[in-house]
Amino acid sequence: MRNRLSATETNYGDEVMNEYFLGVDFGGTNIGIGLLDSQGNIVGRGSLPAEVSLGPRSWVQRVTSCCRGVLKAARVSIDDVKGVGIGSPGPLSVKEGRIIKAGNLPGFDNFCIRSELSGALGIGGVLENDANAACWGEYWLGAAKDNSDMVMFTLGTGIGGGIISSGELVHGSDDNGGELGHIIVEANGRECSCGQKGCLEAYASASNTAARANELLSADCVSSLNDIYGKKGEVTCRDIFDHALQGDGFASEIIDVAARALAQACVSMRHIVEPERVVLAGGMIKAGEIIVERVRKFYDEMIWTLKPEPMDICLATLGDDASIVGAAGLAKHAYESGKLSPVGV
Amino acid sequence: MRNRLSATETNYGDEVMNEYFLGVDFGGTNIGIGLLDSQGNIVGRGSLPAEVSLGPRSWVQRVTSCCRGVLKAARVSIDDVKGVGIGSPGPLSVKEGRIIKAGNLPGFDNFCIRSELSGALGIGGVLENDANAACWGEYWLGAAKDNSDMVMFTLGTGIGGGIISSGELVHGSDDNGGELGHIIVEANGRECSCGQKGCLEAYASASNTAARANELLSADCVSSLNDIYGKKGEVTCRDIFDHALQGDGFASEIIDVAARALAQACVSMRHIVEPERVVLAGGMIKAGEIIVERVRKFYDEMIWTLKPEPMDICLATLGDDASIVGAAGLAKHAYESGKLSPVGV
Repeated sequence: MRNRLSATETNYGDEVMNEYFLGVDFGGTNIGIGLLDSQGNIVGRGSLPAEVSLGPRSWVQRVTSCCRGVLKAARVSIDDVKGVGIGSPGPLSVKEGRIIKAGNLPGFDNFCIRSELSGALGIGGVLENDANAACWGEYWLGAAKDNSDMVMFTLGTGIGGGIISSGELVHGSDDNGGELGHIIVEANGRECSCGQKGCLEAYASASNTAARANELLSADCVSSLNDIYGKKGEVTCRDIFDHALQGDGFASEIIDVAARALAQACVSMRHIVEPERVVLAGGMIKAGEIIVERVRKFYDEMIWTLKPEPMDICLATLGDDASIVGAAGLAKHAYESGKLSPVGV
Repeated sequence: MRNRLSATETNYGDEVMNEYFLGVDFGGTNIGIGLLDSQGNIVGRGSLPAEVSLGPRSWVQRVTSCCRGVLKAARVSIDDVKGVGIGSPGPLSVKEGRIIKAGNLPGFDNFCIRSELSGALGIGGVLENDANAACWGEYWLGAAKDNSDMVMFTLGTGIGGGIISSGELVHGSDDNGGELGHIIVEANGRECSCGQKGCLEAYASASNTAARANELLSADCVSSLNDIYGKKGEVTCRDIFDHALQGDGFASEIIDVAARALAQACVSMRHIVEPERVVLAGGMIKAGEIIVERVRKFYDEMIWTLKPEPMDICLATLGDDASIVGAAGLAKHAYESGKLSPVGV
């Protein structure tokens, strides 16, 4: 007796046809491509230099060519690929499939990336900002698998984010929701590069964590980091985590300030959209459990006492694959819910 | 030539049948009942004392009887009523239609209010917490009409809220999302009755606005409020607004602290769920434009400069009707989207 077919398998006579989805992660340096089956297995991969200076026309040609190569190597026919998802820096219009303005991508302003790539490949498409795509990846196959209400903070040079509410990404009125780095955690607090004061990002991003340490080290704080600061004129976020793990109190307090700001944002997010799980992602989590343990501890200290608010706070599990997985997963989700944009639209 | 039928009108021969929805607002003191047609006209009203001490069985009997009276007076047959919506204090389970625990409603813990009322009336039902129901009312017919992404802050003794994202209420994983009063606006700030520190509610609710003034007046601050404080031992939130409007600097600064906290929460909410519009509701807005004008001013001062973030901040327009309108509107929405719970379920 054969197993029941899943929603994305079609039975043609005795043959079970799998369906496939392409995910494209448009980074400023590299473009990552993944071919996934409907169960979430990565059955093919490709990558190419972004070379954005060659312009959008070249971008579409090179990505299309790379996608075809990935399909060929995986022995998958384009006819079995039901959609392509693109994760791109923003701001962008998800509805129109258009990059509005991308600071690191000159020449791509107002580029209708979804219709162009979808048209060149001959399959339907979906566009999403890169942080949301990665969030969807962790929701589909990663740390928040099966948590239909979840929040992700991406801790890198800045802080990005994504929100899934009742199994759908929160886009906001103009597709720019989920900018979680600019939640204000301190009234009239530390200046953020965005022009606000007291943003989460101003305390807890990798660059601001380093900046806070450097400001204090320049004022002769006592720390095992003094040596590096003396030699190089600055310490990195990684130095701070290394020295905290080795027991340096100053480095540990620098991390605690970031962790407290993150925990406070977690408390607010719990009351706002009530996620079951918060996932921490991005370069800063390479430090490992040290950051997530402290965020959990401060969350438990800060959250209200009216009723228990248990919320899992954990590290992302997909690493750099989150974006291609999420982009392909969004194509699958759009296909299954009838929301995939038609070829070339 | 006749007009096209709307989604909720059915054509039987030459007769156009309207469809109706009941909205029930379960307050601790009074129960409000509204009968609305599918265009949003209130065609009937009723109200009765809550008398919660009589218990849930009596509650269902009295509400059912009042609903029938409203239908009779409006000459509407129960056969034309397609659903009943209930707005109730929480926490509650929206999915199960059950009040989990309601501090002000002894005897109603774990009461399956939706199935009981729906069964007694013989129509499908939907349960929603009262703040969300009022939010839906302002979205359907009030200040945020046609803003499919909106946020409402209800400024009363405490601060409640509601969020609509892409035309749907944000419920959260356990139906307790939208607790916007407990967004933390000040790290390690003023103590809130919930056990957290620095909550929005601790600065901007009516009771905390009065409490902040009374604390300072007890320390001999100079204000035209000194007289009232001297005679009564305390001032009310209303006194503060009255004296601010009459030019008292102390009262004005008390209001500014509330308005700054609200503006900061508006900035964070803009980045999180990107509403087009924020609606201020609740008893405190009886003071009129003074509060909303200041929130707008501080929002404009605080919001980032990366790109324009115009967001309408305005007063609710439905007043006390928001809850019955919203409850009926949620029944309509559930009916039209096939999500109304069947009779007695």
